[in-house]
Parts: sequence; C-alpha cells; structure tokens
Amino acid sequence: MQSMLSRAAQNATTSAIRDLLEHAQRPGMISLAGGLPDPDRFPIDQLAAASERLLRTRGRDVLQYGLTAGNAALRAHIVETTPAADTIDQVVVTTGSQQAQHLIAQVLLDPGDPVIVGDPEYLGALQAFRSREVRLLPAAVDREGIDVDAIEAMIEAGERPKLVYTVPHFHNPSGTTLSNRRRERLLELAARHGFMVVFDDPYRELGEVGSRPAEAAGHPMAVELRSVSKVLAPGLRVGWMIAPRWLCAAVERAKQSADLHTSSLSQAITLGALQSGWYGDHLDDIRAANVAKRYALCHALRDVLGTRLAFDEPAGGMFVWARFTDGTDTTSLLESALGRGVAFVPGAAFAVHSDLRTHLRLSWSTADVASLREAVVRLVG
Amino acid sequence: MQSMLSRAAQNATTSAIRDLLEHAQRPGMISLAGGLPDPDRFPIDQLAAASERLLRTRGRDVLQYGLTAGNAALRAHIVETTPAADTIDQVVVTTGSQQAQHLIAQVLLDPGDPVIVGDPEYLGALQAFRSREVRLLPAAVDREGIDVDAIEAMIEAGERPKLVYTVPHFHNPSGTTLSNRRRERLLELAARHGFMVVFDDPYRELGEVGSRPAEAAGHPMAVELRSVSKVLAPGLRVGWMIAPRWLCAAVERAKQSADLHTSSLSQAITLGALQSGWYGDHLDDIRAANVAKRYALCHALRDVLGTRLAFDEPAGGMFVWARFTDGTDTTSLLESALGRGVAFVPGAAFAVHSDLRTHLRLSWSTADVASLREAVVRLVG
Repeated sequence: MQSMLSRAAQNATTSAIRDLLEHAQRPGMISLAGGLPDPDRFPIDQLAAASERLLRTRGRDVLQYGLTAGNAALRAHIVETTPAADTIDQVVVTTGSQQAQHLIAQVLLDPGDPVIVGDPEYLGALQAFRSREVRLLPAAVDREGIDVDAIEAMIEAGERPKLVYTVPHFHNPSGTTLSNRRRERLLELAARHGFMVVFDDPYRELGEVGSRPAEAAGHPMAVELRSVSKVLAPGLRVGWMIAPRWLCAAVERAKQSADLHTSSLSQAITLGALQSGWYGDHLDDIRAANVAKRYALCHALRDVLGTRLAFDEPAGGMFVWARFTDGTDTTSLLESALGRGVAFVPGAAFAVHSDLRTHLRLSWSTADVASLREAVVRLVG
Repeated sequence: MQSMLSRAAQNATTSAIRDLLEHAQRPGMISLAGGLPDPDRFPIDQLAAASERLLRTRGRDVLQYGLTAGNAALRAHIVETTPAADTIDQVVVTTGSQQAQHLIAQVLLDPGDPVIVGDPEYLGALQAFRSREVRLLPAAVDREGIDVDAIEAMIEAGERPKLVYTVPHFHNPSGTTLSNRRRERLLELAARHGFMVVFDDPYRELGEVGSRPAEAAGHPMAVELRSVSKVLAPGLRVGWMIAPRWLCAAVERAKQSADLHTSSLSQAITLGALQSGWYGDHLDDIRAANVAKRYALCHALRDVLGTRLAFDEPAGGMFVWARFTDGTDTTSLLESALGRGVAFVPGAAFAVHSDLRTHLRLSWSTADVASLREAVVRLVG
C-alpha cells in the first residue's frame, strides 16, 4: 500500500522535474522530453481544405451543439472499422483519450479502490488516478508488456483490483508492446475476478511502414481508448472509447456534466480525414519519418554512450526508455543537460514504487535527424 | 434539506421530461424546447475563411498540443476587454462553460456541501451539482434576479453556503436579470461569510441591438463564466472563467487530468472572431433577429392565450418563462402538445423545491417568426 510519505515524495519529485522541464522551451534547446507529435507531419493542407469545405457545406451542423456520445457518423465509421464495437452505443467520442480515462475513473472508481498500473507508467494516467485518490498497485513492465504473472500473484495474495490500466502498443515510457498471450490471460483474469482492463492505445499506428496493428475482438471486460492526437493532430482533442454498453452509457452521463460534448467541428474534421483517400498515405508518411528518427536516435545513443546506457530499441511509438549502467542519477543529469541545451524526462517521473533514478525517457518525435545526434552528444557533455 | 425521496422524485420527473423531449426531433415539429442558438445566424462564411487561413498560416500551432489554461493570446485578449481580469493567470479557457462549472464544483465542493441556486434554475447546473452530491439550497428568482434577502435569511438561520450559483443576465429559465444592487449585496455577503459566487453568463450579449452589457470589476469572491456558444457557435466548445488566481490554478490542475486542454483550433478560431472587424456587426445581427423573434413569440402568446398565461416579456436572452393561470399541468400538456407538433420544456424540469407544474419555458431561438405563431396555436390545440 502506498504510504502518504511516498506519495508526497513522488509529488515532490514530479513537481521538481516539471519545474526543470519549464526550461525545455528555451531557444536553442533540443527537446527529447515531450510527448508531442512532429508538427512537420501534420496534414495541414488537407485539413485546411477539409475544414473550409465542411464549414461551407455543413456549417449549420458542425457549428451547432451535438450529441454527448459524439457525432453518430463518426461512431458508425468506428464501428465499421473496429471489430471491438458492434453498434454505436459501444462508442463514446471524448475530448482526447485523456477525458475517457478521467471519466472512466470517475464512473468506476471510488477513493481508496485498488487500481493496477505498470511501473513505470504514463504520467497522465498516474495523475488522473492520483487525483481520484485511488490506491495504485504497481506491476512491472517488461519486453512483453505489463507483467500478468505479477497481477495474478497480487490477486492470489488477496488484492481485488477494480481496474487494470495499460498502454498496449509501444508503451509510454517503456516502449514495449503487450503480447497477445498476456492480453488473453489478462482478460481471463478480468472475467474471473470482475475487473475492467483499460487499453490506452494512442501509439498503435506508429509502427513500421505498411504495418497494420491487429484489432482485437470485443470483450466484456475490455475498454479500448483511441486518439487521433499522435496520427492526425492533438490540437483537435478527439479520442474515443470502445467499451461495453453499460459503461458507455455511464460515461455518456458523466460527460454531459463534464463538457456536454466534444467540439463538433473537430469531430467532423476527424471523420473526414479517416474516410479520405489521403489518410492511408499520411499514416505511412508519418511511420517512415518516425522510423528514420528512431534509428537515428538509437544509433547515436549506442555510438556515443556505448555500454554506459542500456536500452532495447522499440519497434515503434515515440520513446526510447534507457538506463545508465554507471549509476548516473537522471534527475541530476537533467539539470546539467539543460545547461548544455538538451531536455529529456528522468525515469523518476514515471515511477510508481520502483527506483527509476538511473532511467530516462527520450523522445525522437519532434527533433530532426541531425539534431538527434547533437542532442545525444549534449546529453553527457 | 433535500431528502433522498425528493431527489428521486426530481430525477424521475426530469427523466420523464427527457423521454418526452426525444420526440422534439420528429419531422414537422416546431421546437420551443431547445437552448440552441439559431443556426441561420452562424457566421459560416467568415468562420470557413478564417479556419482555412488559420490552418494554412499557423497549422503547426493550431493543430498541436496547447497550454492547459488555454491559448495565451486568447487569454490576453480577454484580459484587455474584461475589467474583471488583470492578468492572464485569472483566466482559464474551458471546453464550454459547462466544463468550468463542472471543474469548479470538483475543486470547491465536497459531497454534502451546501450550495445556493435559484429556484427555478438552469438544468445543466442542477445536474452538475447533483452529480457532485452537494446539498442544494433554493432561493427564489424574481424580476431582479436571485433573491438575496432569501440568501441572507438562510445564512442568519445558520446555513454556511460554500457557493452561490446564478445566471445574471436573462436567466435560464426565468429570463430575469440580476440588478446591480443585488449583485453588490450578494458579493458583500460572500466576502463576509466566505463563499464564492459563480456568475454563469452565456446570454449577456443577447439584449437589445446596440446594447453593451456592463462589465463588472473583479472581486475576490466572484467567478465569471463566459461562452461563445450563444453568440458565435456552440460546436466550437469554447468558454472561459475569470476568477481569482488561486481558483484558476486549482481549476487548471483539475483540467489537466480532465482533458489536457480545449481544442487549439477552436480557441484560435474564437480569438480570430473576437478580434475581427465583422464581430460587432455579427452581434447586432443576432440581436436584431433575436428581438424580432422575441416580440413575435410574446405577441402570439398574449394574442392566443390571453389571461390564461402569465409572463413578463424578458429584455433579452432566449426564453419566455410563463405560468398557466388556469392550473394547466405543463408536463401533461407536453404529451398532447407533442402530438400537435410543438415542443417546450415543462417548468418541473427546472424546479429545485418549488412546485412549478403550471410553468413552462418557451425558447424563440430556432423557429422562424411565422412558425412561432403556429407553435403557440398548436400549444393549446
């Protein structure tokens, strides 16, 4: 059980890191810290033309109030393209997938409820769960994703989790992907012990060029969170959840009080993009740029740091998760690295219980290939 | 104190009314039920051109992640044009003003806390407060707005409200405007007894042509909620709160977990509109149409229903709040009126404790002038 002391220490660490990262915006800084997609790959011309056409031809709809559960045509498109949903009442469009996570926590969890997360885990999820004052139970994350043996052991030891949260593809920060075997075992446990599993999946399309991530079938204990933030544009704030009807209905009620509905214009632009002729090529374009940058960063890290840094090269996503083998404390390193003009996120920011002081997360997403090598050189001075 | 029984009865009434109003979408129906702005007055051409130009020239910004508190240039514009805010850290942009209300409730209120609202009151506010499980204390609403004598009497009787909520201009549903005298007394009480006052003000611009609603100075106990939903386009989902720095900081933290930030594109479109040369003319255009429809509805009501219906003609906004003098139950009337092709909202939907079974709210906003008379004829068959 997480003590108040460790929570206070965690908050202090997180806010110290946040303070340091305010410097990441300084001119000349190369930031490997962000989770932002590369703005050079936004389909600006396509979205400019689409938004103008949408407003001129359907302005009365796309500027008006809409349904709380989301644009029915967008939800129908999601049903057509996603085997996990059979009907549109299994889909709720949210103001980014962050909102889905927040509303699910509000609907399913009470303060003190046990929630299993990875350790390390996505900071936004940890913040959302901590603000709900739940009890976080950490499970390790390894090359096959979250450790389902560890989850089973917790249950055998008497824990009764209400929810398990994981990022199944190219996990943030660890970069690993949940194996099918583990996914199935996790859902078996969920059905047997009555907990929901949230698969928060914003990076799924960021694999190799031409790759098609497998779509899972629906499951009564599974919640899929999707987002266009990493593949189209985060500024639209469009995500959605695919979940059993009872949970969609409860989230819809909570969303009505929370913000009535997500921007009608953003939803219409999103639907237009997903149905367009250019979207598939656009995905391959961002995948190609993403792979090139990933190679560049990983190559530079091996080249410059050699055995001082241990990491597995991820198969996609946006992040390298690495560990200094010589005991370098990455929060201290961040202070000096900022002075040399490079930013990253120290591992401690993602820690639930583990000691991740020698870890760090490096994003290749927004820097260009040449800057990535320079960033690595600056990292250790 | 509101008993569980009265709350259950209230929920049953509200959901019965909601079920009935699902029929308001039927073809041929004239709806006086909605709170929607008139889509004929959306500035579609201006927004289409502006959104295309914004995307082409500033796509990298308006499609990217943004600050949780909102676009800094939009907040600076709000500071320049609103005396209640001195610096941008007194402004948080929200996903509609509904979100501001929701986050303020989350930040300031615990279950069981006493909250004073008007009776009748805006249904969305009642739902947001009820979902927070606070204790609602109703104060009457009359021609000068919420009854501040009644609030003072509650305090003298030992109540310690945490928050007072009101719609100061063209109150929904009652149509009345809070007098300056009452506003000042309410804020004096707030300062003396330590509660915040939320002024939810979406209709403020919907007065007479050329009118300029007075802007209040800042006050340490006042929260101003603003929205472009009724004057530009609700589908953008852009509102903002102006409040003391401590409360803005707390709402910003809560918003980070709730949805990270409001659509960057919607915020940029909003700022462009507010700064444009056409916005003032646009406001007068919607005011002129609004006044013409208000006259048409009120005239038809007097002409067709005479003394059967008692109401004060409001000076602006979107709603007539009326009472049948012959004891007609408006929830029953709604059932038969839907059969005759007209929808409205029965008074019971807005009730906290009062018996509002003979009241009804009629919106002139979306029907055209000719249909408004026909709607009144259908109302009573």
